[in-house]
Amino acid sequence: MSVIYRVNMSELTVSVEHPDAACELLGGRGLTSRIVASEVTATCHPLSAENKLVFAPGLLTGTGAPCAGRLSAGAKSPLTGTIKEANSGGTAAQALAALGIHALIVEGKPADGKLYRLIVSRSGVEIEEAAALGGLGNYETVARQLERFGDKVSCVSIGPAGEMGCAAASIAVTDVEHRPTRHCGRGGLGAVMGSKGVKVIVIDPAGGQRLEPADRPAFTQAVRKFAAALSRHPLSSETLPTYGTNALANVINQAGAYPTCNFSTGQFAGTEAISGERQHDIIVQRDGVLAHACHRGCTIKCSRIYLDEQGEYLTKGPEYETVWAHGANCGIDDLDAIARMDRMDDDLGLDTIETGATIAVAMEAGIIPFGDAAGALGLLEEVAARTALGRLVASGAEVLAKAYGVTRVPTVKGQSMPAYDPRAIKGIGVTYATTTQGADHTAGYAIAQNVLGVGGKVDPLSPHGQAELSRNLQIATAAIDTSGMCLFVAFAVLDDPQALEGLCDLIAARTGQTFTAQDLSELGKRVLRSERDFNARAGFTAADDRLPDFFRMEKLPPHEAVFDVSDEELDSVFNF
Amino acid sequence: MSVIYRVNMSELTVSVEHPDAACELLGGRGLTSRIVASEVTATCHPLSAENKLVFAPGLLTGTGAPCAGRLSAGAKSPLTGTIKEANSGGTAAQALAALGIHALIVEGKPADGKLYRLIVSRSGVEIEEAAALGGLGNYETVARQLERFGDKVSCVSIGPAGEMGCAAASIAVTDVEHRPTRHCGRGGLGAVMGSKGVKVIVIDPAGGQRLEPADRPAFTQAVRKFAAALSRHPLSSETLPTYGTNALANVINQAGAYPTCNFSTGQFAGTEAISGERQHDIIVQRDGVLAHACHRGCTIKCSRIYLDEQGEYLTKGPEYETVWAHGANCGIDDLDAIARMDRMDDDLGLDTIETGATIAVAMEAGIIPFGDAAGALGLLEEVAARTALGRLVASGAEVLAKAYGVTRVPTVKGQSMPAYDPRAIKGIGVTYATTTQGADHTAGYAIAQNVLGVGGKVDPLSPHGQAELSRNLQIATAAIDTSGMCLFVAFAVLDDPQALEGLCDLIAARTGQTFTAQDLSELGKRVLRSERDFNARAGFTAADDRLPDFFRMEKLPPHEAVFDVSDEELDSVFNF
Repeated sequence: MSVIYRVNMSELTVSVEHPDAACELLGGRGLTSRIVASEVTATCHPLSAENKLVFAPGLLTGTGAPCAGRLSAGAKSPLTGTIKEANSGGTAAQALAALGIHALIVEGKPADGKLYRLIVSRSGVEIEEAAALGGLGNYETVARQLERFGDKVSCVSIGPAGEMGCAAASIAVTDVEHRPTRHCGRGGLGAVMGSKGVKVIVIDPAGGQRLEPADRPAFTQAVRKFAAALSRHPLSSETLPTYGTNALANVINQAGAYPTCNFSTGQFAGTEAISGERQHDIIVQRDGVLAHACHRGCTIKCSRIYLDEQGEYLTKGPEYETVWAHGANCGIDDLDAIARMDRMDDDLGLDTIETGATIAVAMEAGIIPFGDAAGALGLLEEVAARTALGRLVASGAEVLAKAYGVTRVPTVKGQSMPAYDPRAIKGIGVTYATTTQGADHTAGYAIAQNVLGVGGKVDPLSPHGQAELSRNLQIATAAIDTSGMCLFVAFAVLDDPQALEGLCDLIAARTGQTFTAQDLSELGKRVLRSERDFNARAGFTAADDRLPDFFRMEKLPPHEAVFDVSDEELDSVFNF
Repeated sequence: MSVIYRVNMSELTVSVEHPDAACELLGGRGLTSRIVASEVTATCHPLSAENKLVFAPGLLTGTGAPCAGRLSAGAKSPLTGTIKEANSGGTAAQALAALGIHALIVEGKPADGKLYRLIVSRSGVEIEEAAALGGLGNYETVARQLERFGDKVSCVSIGPAGEMGCAAASIAVTDVEHRPTRHCGRGGLGAVMGSKGVKVIVIDPAGGQRLEPADRPAFTQAVRKFAAALSRHPLSSETLPTYGTNALANVINQAGAYPTCNFSTGQFAGTEAISGERQHDIIVQRDGVLAHACHRGCTIKCSRIYLDEQGEYLTKGPEYETVWAHGANCGIDDLDAIARMDRMDDDLGLDTIETGATIAVAMEAGIIPFGDAAGALGLLEEVAARTALGRLVASGAEVLAKAYGVTRVPTVKGQSMPAYDPRAIKGIGVTYATTTQGADHTAGYAIAQNVLGVGGKVDPLSPHGQAELSRNLQIATAAIDTSGMCLFVAFAVLDDPQALEGLCDLIAARTGQTFTAQDLSELGKRVLRSERDFNARAGFTAADDRLPDFFRMEKLPPHEAVFDVSDEELDSVFNF
């Protein structure tokens, strides 16, 4: 039977409880949001003892289902003030699941302000002082854990940004090579972990085991059905393994929706130099790794290993959003410089999207010019040096904009928009505006229908149909994020009835209860409702479900489009 | 007939219009809030071209009524995101009124990003490039205007903080000695002025005249009645002229409500050294000026001129809130150092309350220790040097706290609380929480009934009766702020029926319409409703009408009190 560990960092105590029946049927985002929404005072300061940081593997994580290794982290966000769930690949979720851990709740805050390590193993959770880790980057932090605990453990850690309490701080999760390259990136959850004095969580899965589904034969059959569908879909079987997520660079640039120089135009002259195709060639040429899996059981393998000019390991990927954030959005067309920034972000423990967006705002403020890769790296050095400027860079675009009087700030609810301009892909604009999470592409990835022709086709430049599209995607995503599946299964799920059926069959066989597509939708709605309810209690209203005014007023080249989905349409997204 | 000038800084054009009948019966806050609420898109970025900055003398300003020289400035606030009105003494309001100017609306934003001067005179408003003033402090800015325009003009200007677009930036107004010592302090309106490229507004009243009331004999009689009441009340006739506003230091410290070291305790060991009584003695000893009027016609004279150790002019006052913000709240008990900070704030164009509160948060963050006067002056030097840290200091407590991960942030709607701890004076806590302006003591000064025994007596430590008290005060204040009267007339108005009657008679005689105490109350309600309506459109809800959680959780010595006015009570304040 699975357990929930509750770690009280005020008292430095650990208690164990068993999930109730409703929690037992949840995992991932569904579970973290349920716990945060029911246990955290919505008006609390996100870095106060009253906030709680919840980790949960997905419902299917640890079962042997393919692509089901996501780890959800949830809390009230210091970046947005909303409820927040950010999920990550890597090996930690499977390790937790193998130990029968349904959720790990970190609450309170050490009175002594010291740093601690949590050691999670078959024998429970230990809290141990770890002052010596203070100030270390994620790479060195992880290296020291491996030295002590061996290389079978998974690590969940924060870098200096999280220790500093900065709102762009991420939580790093180790990949199969034990590198801190996978991140619960968005919403500053690393700062919440830092506020609780937890530098690293070491998870030792020794003695753990694969989760046994309620109906083994049905599960095996569902795995086959689902895996076959994934391997049939061209995006999950060809594009992503070959070119990685950055395959999108040319596609989105072509669509005129590639935000360039802080969302001032929709096409970047330097796209080719930072495209997935170019990245592919560089990786091949330097003997890096393509088609890399971030966790066991991933059949998509969108990750890659990027070597530097000397053939030494530099970083993973980097991913599409990272390349965009530090590249096009900053007017930088140097892939090696971008990869170095990715490495620094991972080491400092920074969300690459928020950080790139913040650097672009710093460029707009005139701190450094657009296109200045050395200057951008210098801003990350400021974070490392903990200067006031570095703290601003690590605090997100909105805070830096406020200090420098910048008015073009592409945020919703305080969180920076990712790599798709909402004026040229209006479906994603609806998602940015209305999701419970602040501007987030993964919450309802309308790029699928607006640009990729997956799951149907909705004209990206028309305001019509986008609210309904975003609604359906947000519902489906909340359910998928609960299952522990990587969001990239969604392409197959949207296009192939066998994939959707396979996913439902997996959940049914795992839980021993019937589970249809209708149940999946109901699950997603339930998750969204609990998140919306938290946000309402925290003071969010329809007026917050809006894009900044400049998206309605400044035309985006080359389509000369503005965001013109009506407020009424935006307010209809949660009519379900 | 009075006029409204509309200055379009995008087009660099000026137009003139005549107020409609409803506007004609408004002035000050009533007028600025009406114009902002009806003309500004509530969701706009406060520093964008869409925001408007409105100046208006009060309805009684320029008539010869005593103490009626307030200048209201209104806009959407970059600090709070709410509507904002901040009013100031000094000579500008009377100069505008003498020219028959009912309001001056500054809209748009220069495309070239240049700095301009507005010259307001009998012949209208001129816009003139003023690049040479860029970066100058308010003192030098004003000195250069006097050199060119002579010493009969009034100046309304911003310092470097306003040019930098920082949200603690104030708008300075010259006093009778032509010094930029009076400020529309709160809410960052200086940044709005800066965003519009207006460095200084020079107002030349030459050829203007005293406003002629509709009923001269009645007006003369009302002046007598009102002035007599002011001269009868001990606060306006004795305490304020003798000890200035800082007479409160000992009183509020005695009440255990003097926020010390970033609101961590309610009494400051160093109070005596920074008290109004001590300040009085220093001023006398150095041949400074007591009982100084900030504008002609002021009979209260709470202002003073503070000389340094060498007998040279240093600054005005400093006022109670300033002394508290840079003193007790920072653990600093050196009045000369505080006066130097006041001078720097005035010169840089910073709200002294927000700036002191921000320095205290910087102390809590460990940037400098509590009590470090040299360090605090150093932080203001950072503003002058335009460093990243300086920008944070000039951006208010909430932004600095975010960058440094500080959780004890005494703000409401992003604006720092003034010099009264809401746990020990609960009526002011209700005002902080609910006013349309963010934490603001002047919006409903419950200190009167909670501590001073003016206008009745309500136990400061009891949660009961505070909502009703704050409601009535907020209504009355909105009306007084519309009249152009200094808020210090309120002591007499609250205690002496003749003062209330005199005020109503003044308005009646000025406008030629009947005006009773009931009308005064209706006027205040109308103003509040329009402000609340703007804020609702900007996304504010009851959830924003709250104090930070720590005021409900951390007990304040010596009373060991928490803020325990219920949410229901808070939500009842606007039930009218």
